[in-house]
This record gives sequence, C-alpha cells and structure tokens, in this order.
Amino acid sequence: MDNLNIGRHISGQFNEDLERVINHVMQMGGLVEKQLSDALTSVYESDEELAKRVHANDYQVNKLEVSIDDECTRIIAKRQPAAGDLRLIMAIVKTIADLERIGDEAEKIAEVTLQSLGKDHKDLLQNLDNLGRRVLETLQTTLDAFTRMDVNAAIKIHRTDAKIDREYEALMRQLMTYMMEEPRSIPQIMTVIWSARALERIGDRCQNICEYIIYFVKGKVVRHTSPEDIKKLKDSTE
Amino acid sequence: MDNLNIGRHISGQFNEDLERVINHVMQMGGLVEKQLSDALTSVYESDEELAKRVHANDYQVNKLEVSIDDECTRIIAKRQPAAGDLRLIMAIVKTIADLERIGDEAEKIAEVTLQSLGKDHKDLLQNLDNLGRRVLETLQTTLDAFTRMDVNAAIKIHRTDAKIDREYEALMRQLMTYMMEEPRSIPQIMTVIWSARALERIGDRCQNICEYIIYFVKGKVVRHTSPEDIKKLKDSTE
Repeated sequence: MDNLNIGRHISGQFNEDLERVINHVMQMGGLVEKQLSDALTSVYESDEELAKRVHANDYQVNKLEVSIDDECTRIIAKRQPAAGDLRLIMAIVKTIADLERIGDEAEKIAEVTLQSLGKDHKDLLQNLDNLGRRVLETLQTTLDAFTRMDVNAAIKIHRTDAKIDREYEALMRQLMTYMMEEPRSIPQIMTVIWSARALERIGDRCQNICEYIIYFVKGKVVRHTSPEDIKKLKDSTE
Repeated sequence: MDNLNIGRHISGQFNEDLERVINHVMQMGGLVEKQLSDALTSVYESDEELAKRVHANDYQVNKLEVSIDDECTRIIAKRQPAAGDLRLIMAIVKTIADLERIGDEAEKIAEVTLQSLGKDHKDLLQNLDNLGRRVLETLQTTLDAFTRMDVNAAIKIHRTDAKIDREYEALMRQLMTYMMEEPRSIPQIMTVIWSARALERIGDRCQNICEYIIYFVKGKVVRHTSPEDIKKLKDSTE
C-alpha cells in the first residue's frame, strides 16, 4: 500500500478505521472476483450447480457494499478527514458501487449456463470464455492496483480496455453472423450476447476503478479525459 | 424542497454552498432530461441533425458531473457536515453519477437514428418510442422528487420500474420474433435492441436515484431491499 501512508496519521483510531475499511474493500473485491470466475467456469463447463451458486451468493456482495458505504459515511462524520484522506474515502465509496455492479454482471453471465446452449455452439462458448478470461485478468490487476494505490498500474490497465472492446466487437460480429445463418437459435445466441455485453461492461467498470485510483493519488479527475492526456499524467510521475 | 430544510443551518455560508450545489444538480438533471427527450425525438422522426446534437452535447453533462463532484468534496472538507447534511452530500455524489450514465445511454439511443431503419420498421420504432416516453416520464418525476426530496414520491416511482421492465420484455420478444422472421435485418434490429436496453437501464438508474432520496430522508439504505419492505417505509411516514 505504498501510496496509502496509513501510518502517518496522528490519530491511531483513524488509522484503524482506514485499515479496517480497506480490508473490507479487499474482501469485497475477492468475493466479486470469485463470482466472476465461477460464472465463467459455470458457462464453459455447463455447470448448473455452480451457476446457481453464483446467483445465490450475490446477496453477500450487496451486503458488503451497504456495510462499507455506511462505514465510510461514519468515518467522514466522526473523523472529518480532509485532502487525501477524504479523497480516499470518496474513492472507496465509488469503487464499491462499481464492484457491486460487477457482481450483478457476473450473475447475468451465469444465466447462460442455466439456458444451456448445447454442444453445437462450443466455439461460441470458447470465444466468450476467451473474452471472459481477459476481463477477469483485468479485474484482478485492477483490484491489485487498488490495494497498492498504484497509479502507474491504474493508467496501464486503463489503456488495455480498448483491447477488451475490440475483442468484444469481434465476438459480436461473429454472433450476428450466427444469428443470420441460424435464425432458429436466435434466443440462445441472445443469451451469449447479453453475457458478452456484461463482460464488456465489467471492463468499463474496471476502468472506472482505475480512474478513482488516479483521482486519489493525483487529486485529479480523469473521467472523460482522453487516453493521451491520462498517459501524460503517468509520464509526469516517472 | 420540503425535506431539505436548508434554512435551518447556523452558518449562512453553508446554506449558500448547499443551495448552489442543489441548483447545479437540477441544472444537470434538466440537461440530461433534454438529452433523452431529444434522443427519442431524433429516433422517432429520423432526425439525424438532432441525433448528432445529442452526441455533441454529452460533454456538457460530463463537465457538470465533474464540477458538482468536486463541489461536494470541497463542501465536506470545508464544512465538515454531519448526519443529514452529510447524507445529502453523499446522495448528491451518487445521483450525479447516475445522471451522467443516463446521459451516456441517451447518446446510445440517438445512435438508432444514425443507423437509419427505414420505413419497414415503423411499428418497432413506435413501440420503442412508447417505452422511451414512459422512461422519460419516470426520469422527470424522479428529478421532481429529488428537487423536493419527496420520499413518498420516490417510493412510488421505485415501484413503477416493474412496469418499465414488463414493457421492455414485451418489446424484446417482438424484436426477437422479427429477427427470426427477417434474418437479413438482424444488424438493424440489434440497434433497436441496444436502445431498448439503454431505456431499461435508465429506468434502473431512476430507481437508484429514488433510493438515494429515501436514504437521505429516512437515513436508511434501501438498495437490495424488496419492494414490499420499501412500501412499509412509506406507510410508516403517513
């Protein structure tokens, strides 16, 4: 946690508050990561039990979001943080909102398993899985960057989202061709389309989290900033 | 602004801060409402110029989000609000995030105009427009409830989202049938599907904003709460 400097606070109680809330965010991140990984495995291996488990476990993600959000508001009210500390709390509040939505998307992905596609579409599932594994990796590196508040890692991840988008577009074209060739399987293909879309959105949400990291460390809002300008930020830190 | 009680603050400066930020949120809400309305009109009337304007105006929504967000952080740091005041600021921070995403969805809807569907699909566009007008109305009543921090209105709007979902599902079934009957028009129909999906998500985001209103007024997080439990909240205020 190089950039967190938790130890520098005069109030030991405040340090404890911060450490506790960051641990909870990590716990939530780990859970969301597992949900996404399980959702992908359930689709690829047609494991209905696992898909149902993903569905059933979503309430845990929701519960963590509500409790961390509450924790953050209480820290602001009690400790009246300013500058960097306040930015950290605001970054956490926004990050958990995105993590919660990533959990929702994982649930949608698991739906593909429950609406079984059959063997005919193994290649589609393979391509969906490829996209999924790339997104999962992005989520993992994002959570890792968050834990260390590593702004350079955040900027790097932010740039890789374009790759996810390209892979998503390619899959989407393939899915459309399939639907045109086999109109009867349109309802099934649509489920794959929703999953692919969910993955693309998870990529976007990882980008959001990277933006919060940059906001915390640099004190600069980079949402709606061009990738080129974000890159300049990185260069200025090296 | 029955529930805002801005006048009760001892610090006149704090009142001014709060009033100013709330005015900015209303301004942002008005802009987002106009973007959605213009997007729907552009689709229904195949008005490409209007669609391009929706696209071009999105930066204004983004700019407002960044500046209001910054304003909120500065108010927290300077005025150290507690209890209700802090809840209000947190509700605003979350609301503007949802408003900004509604702006993004409006932009996606305007895309349908730019990928012209032609006269053959007038009935589909009519149904999309019906769904759109219902969602626009929901956005308007949501912004109105936010302005007055009217918890009962928020609870009522929260319940109507199920209607939007039903209308969306019906449209989606119709679109799938179309694709199966006319595989050649799949790419065009897909654009309508993305728009319908965008509308459904705007409905969800209005629900989120209603939840922030309830959170501010009742001090209770109602995300992930069943509609029945939310209704009980309303009954207890009457």
